[in-house]
Amino acid sequence: MNKTALLVIGDEILTGRTQDANTHYLATELARLGLPLAEVRVVPDDMDEIVAALNALRKKYKYVFTTGGIGPTHDDITADAVAQAFGVDLPIHPEALARLEAYYENRPGKVNEARRRMARVPVGGQLIENTVTSAPGFYIENVFVLAGVPHVMQAMFGALKPLLEPGAPLISYSVLCRIAEGDLSASFEAIAKKYPAVSLGSYPHQIGDNKWEVTLVARGYDAALVKQAYEDVQQMIIRLGGEADMVSLGS
Amino acid sequence: MNKTALLVIGDEILTGRTQDANTHYLATELARLGLPLAEVRVVPDDMDEIVAALNALRKKYKYVFTTGGIGPTHDDITADAVAQAFGVDLPIHPEALARLEAYYENRPGKVNEARRRMARVPVGGQLIENTVTSAPGFYIENVFVLAGVPHVMQAMFGALKPLLEPGAPLISYSVLCRIAEGDLSASFEAIAKKYPAVSLGSYPHQIGDNKWEVTLVARGYDAALVKQAYEDVQQMIIRLGGEADMVSLGS
Repeated sequence: MNKTALLVIGDEILTGRTQDANTHYLATELARLGLPLAEVRVVPDDMDEIVAALNALRKKYKYVFTTGGIGPTHDDITADAVAQAFGVDLPIHPEALARLEAYYENRPGKVNEARRRMARVPVGGQLIENTVTSAPGFYIENVFVLAGVPHVMQAMFGALKPLLEPGAPLISYSVLCRIAEGDLSASFEAIAKKYPAVSLGSYPHQIGDNKWEVTLVARGYDAALVKQAYEDVQQMIIRLGGEADMVSLGS
Repeated sequence: MNKTALLVIGDEILTGRTQDANTHYLATELARLGLPLAEVRVVPDDMDEIVAALNALRKKYKYVFTTGGIGPTHDDITADAVAQAFGVDLPIHPEALARLEAYYENRPGKVNEARRRMARVPVGGQLIENTVTSAPGFYIENVFVLAGVPHVMQAMFGALKPLLEPGAPLISYSVLCRIAEGDLSASFEAIAKKYPAVSLGSYPHQIGDNKWEVTLVARGYDAALVKQAYEDVQQMIIRLGGEADMVSLGS
């Protein structure tokens, strides 16, 4: 069971102020690591909602990642929620505090009460390095707590990656054609039935008035099977008369 | 209780193939309608996962919207999952079929078995018009089932909007400044405490090496209170010496 989940924390996503970019990044990275993202939840900056979602996800998935809510302001309550979910205290972590103090030694600003909040880590948690702004993320058991600002989150993910036990990477091949979905559906389903271990997806997009393209995707964890299914899909497109407009996008 | 939820259905989001755009669109629209999005879940094209998430959300929120999985291919199982969640059959809806037949009368393609799938509606469901490709969405009780392709989803949302009972619209004011979050946190929290009915958020973004801006947002449903809190935030920025770099973004 290599499945993973992401908990996106923040009113700003739910009110439409901010378009979440972390899901797309982590989905891509986790697929490559063979730790497929199987569920995402977005919840507001609300203690009970964060705790409930976290407890549901951490029992169900191998790893859970959270993004958002670990800054110095009053609406940053993720560390508090994680501590509550695990039923542990949330003391200042000496090493986290030392990193903040080192960072602010040569910069404007001081490690005041607000910034000390960012050094709190639930008992049992360990630090995740933040090479951008020093205030670390942390992990406790199978839960990894990351920043919401995308480039800080990505730096933290880079730092924690060696801690993850990878699986077989997701292999994915795509081909573009101009056959309407409704006209290829029966043949496409037959291929899906022939390869139960390969997931076949169909994604249409409009390219003009009444003109649609569709991307057909074969994905799975057995590289040879995925490739075979993909070749069947290409053959299907040719059989259905779509060769002229077929563009193989490869893996 | 005007809170709403969104269930995004599709392997393509979870594998990183596609960056979801529907959450951002619906979050913005629903905030304007006073039907704030309080939770989003993204689940794969898996019957049990869709049914479980849908049953959890539809009992908890005033309205639930789903996106994705209503096309003509085998991986489109949203209608099946909704029927199962409500414990009802999924027959062909005569009016939905008539719309598909009218659409394909003057276009290439036929209403074959695959396309007939798109005319299936759970018993008790009613159609949501699709002005783009005719295959309708549907709603049943408080669940609205929409396409995944963004411009089709948006057309469907436009069609169903008159069915929603709106609340007071979310009022939101923003101001940009260059005071570090850690230096404004204490004063900002004091304002948050003064206006418990207003939600105050702080969103930093890097603009250069060691240079950060922060957007401070006041949002809520009582227009006068939100404006007052926002003015307090502006005064706070001036008091903390940030007047020169302060940019009021308004509502």
